[in-house]
Amino acid sequence: MSAARAKPVPRRPIIGVVGASRPSAEEAALAEAVGRAVGRAGAILLCGGLGGVMEAACRGAKEAGGLMVGILPTEDAADANPFVDVPVATGIGEARNAIVARAPDALVAVGGGYGTLSEIALALKGGKRVVGLRAPEVEGILPARTAEEAVASALGAT
Amino acid sequence: MSAARAKPVPRRPIIGVVGASRPSAEEAALAEAVGRAVGRAGAILLCGGLGGVMEAACRGAKEAGGLMVGILPTEDAADANPFVDVPVATGIGEARNAIVARAPDALVAVGGGYGTLSEIALALKGGKRVVGLRAPEVEGILPARTAEEAVASALGAT
Amino acid sequence: MSAARAKPVPRRPIIGVVGASRPSAEEAALAEAVGRAVGRAGAILLCGGLGGVMEAACRGAKEAGGLMVGILPTEDAADANPFVDVPVATGIGEARNAIVARAPDALVAVGGGYGTLSEIALALKGGKRVVGLRAPEVEGILPARTAEEAVASALGAT
Amino acid sequence: MSAARAKPVPRRPIIGVVGASRPSAEEAALAEAVGRAVGRAGAILLCGGLGGVMEAACRGAKEAGGLMVGILPTEDAADANPFVDVPVATGIGEARNAIVARAPDALVAVGGGYGTLSEIALALKGGKRVVGLRAPEVEGILPARTAEEAVASALGAT
Repeated sequence: MSAARAKPVPRRPIIGVVGASRPSAEEAALAEAVGRAVGRAGAILLCGGLGGVMEAACRGAKEAGGLMVGILPTEDAADANPFVDVPVATGIGEARNAIVARAPDALVAVGGGYGTLSEIALALKGGKRVVGLRAPEVEGILPARTAEEAVASALGAT
Repeated sequence: MSAARAKPVPRRPIIGVVGASRPSAEEAALAEAVGRAVGRAGAILLCGGLGGVMEAACRGAKEAGGLMVGILPTEDAADANPFVDVPVATGIGEARNAIVARAPDALVAVGGGYGTLSEIALALKGGKRVVGLRAPEVEGILPARTAEEAVASALGAT
Repeated sequence: MSAARAKPVPRRPIIGVVGASRPSAEEAALAEAVGRAVGRAGAILLCGGLGGVMEAACRGAKEAGGLMVGILPTEDAADANPFVDVPVATGIGEARNAIVARAPDALVAVGGGYGTLSEIALALKGGKRVVGLRAPEVEGILPARTAEEAVASALGAT
Repeated sequence: MSAARAKPVPRRPIIGVVGASRPSAEEAALAEAVGRAVGRAGAILLCGGLGGVMEAACRGAKEAGGLMVGILPTEDAADANPFVDVPVATGIGEARNAIVARAPDALVAVGGGYGTLSEIALALKGGKRVVGLRAPEVEGILPARTAEEAVASALGAT
């Protein structure tokens, strides 16, 4: 084996972003800012891969040169929003929420309904840090006032 | 095909019971009463298969001659509580919460922490009726005052 | 705790039956005989819950008074064949093959294509006994000549 | 929305690489060459994230500047081999084989035992192209003589 062989480097933190598929304009703007902050920090953004908060966050991360991973419920990579670099078409439906909740080092929740609530609960059950921006009120979520503060707090867990 | 061949009969309703793995004495008593009511109604009781509320509910259902199904997170059927008739050792970890939430016709939640909250959220996301007894407060849960009332309400969804 | 409380009894063995969704007439007859043998033995029959070999096996088990569990890929219990007593609508698609392969104590394979092959492989990977009747040729499968012999061999693993 | 907003670009093909966790030296060298060819082609390499063929393929892809995604069975990203850029810690055990089989556009199999066989079967069931290098003999696998030929064939499916 030659001296030129690839060497491992420390892996990049993974920040999960969860939220409503039909966000308000304010939530979408927040999600985009969260994505930008994740991208600027050199972290990987992992989400459910679909529209709404997921797409807004991916768009923001793309603007900042980030890497976006989408854990899709369906078997079709074409279901990913157009800013996802790595679509993971799981085919396991809503059970993929458990992966979205557990695979990242920490989670940022922006708004959100029942799906987001399930991801928050699964992440907290697994001992992950969850930071909320206008997120469902669940004991254990760390509140944040701005997207930048939320991402900094999430990165603090990595 | 002969006249003696087996004929299908209408399938029995399936009621999911979710709740804390370390319930209070009151929650355990409630869960056992829920299980008895499910068993008496001739419904199948489906749960996560482990201890606490799950075991109490299975014990109650067994007393009433019910059929108890446990959707386990592990690959080992021996992890099921001793009142489970049908252990389904999934090996998929917490992702099995999505199955516990969606496979039943309706859900009864007794107390509960983050795991239960994820099941409630996934069930509501899927349009299932969820009836709560001292359950986490989530918009959309139907409250009930007694175990019997909870099971009657859940059966109303089947 | 009172003397009248429910007591656990030893749990029944669980035999998985896997095979083609479009079997030949001979395979369907074999599957039905396998189901009958499972039912007569007092074991639980677990399968993928759909048609073909799965339905034939469930029909046979029903004739023998058995208990039939169907681990469905979809979220809809109505997709189960009419002889399934306990439909478990997982919603996780083909990933449910891992549950069909691992949840039983042992597996009987009757004919089968790619889906069956995946279940055989996953069961063998998990150290489960797999008995084959005209099944895909995989190293490690135990061959059997008759349905009765196959089920007796599978039960020997429980 | 400003002119500077991020625009989608066509997504990169995803090639899955599956194989034994304890390969022969020859299989490991083949897997590394497969990884290099995937990386050179600008495709994303997706695998099970662990050792053996998976690690060798990731090492090869890293040497070629590729992007490596590991779909882990456990909940711990630290279980990934050191060449994985994006560990997806699923926590769903062997059921993750269904994701490894279905998420890529096409699969290359290098050697392999029961786990690999299950992935090949699940991929073929899903209509994916599977190219084999000393892989288990399954009807429908396309044989290849070299790593470069295997990857070119797999990319032909994208």
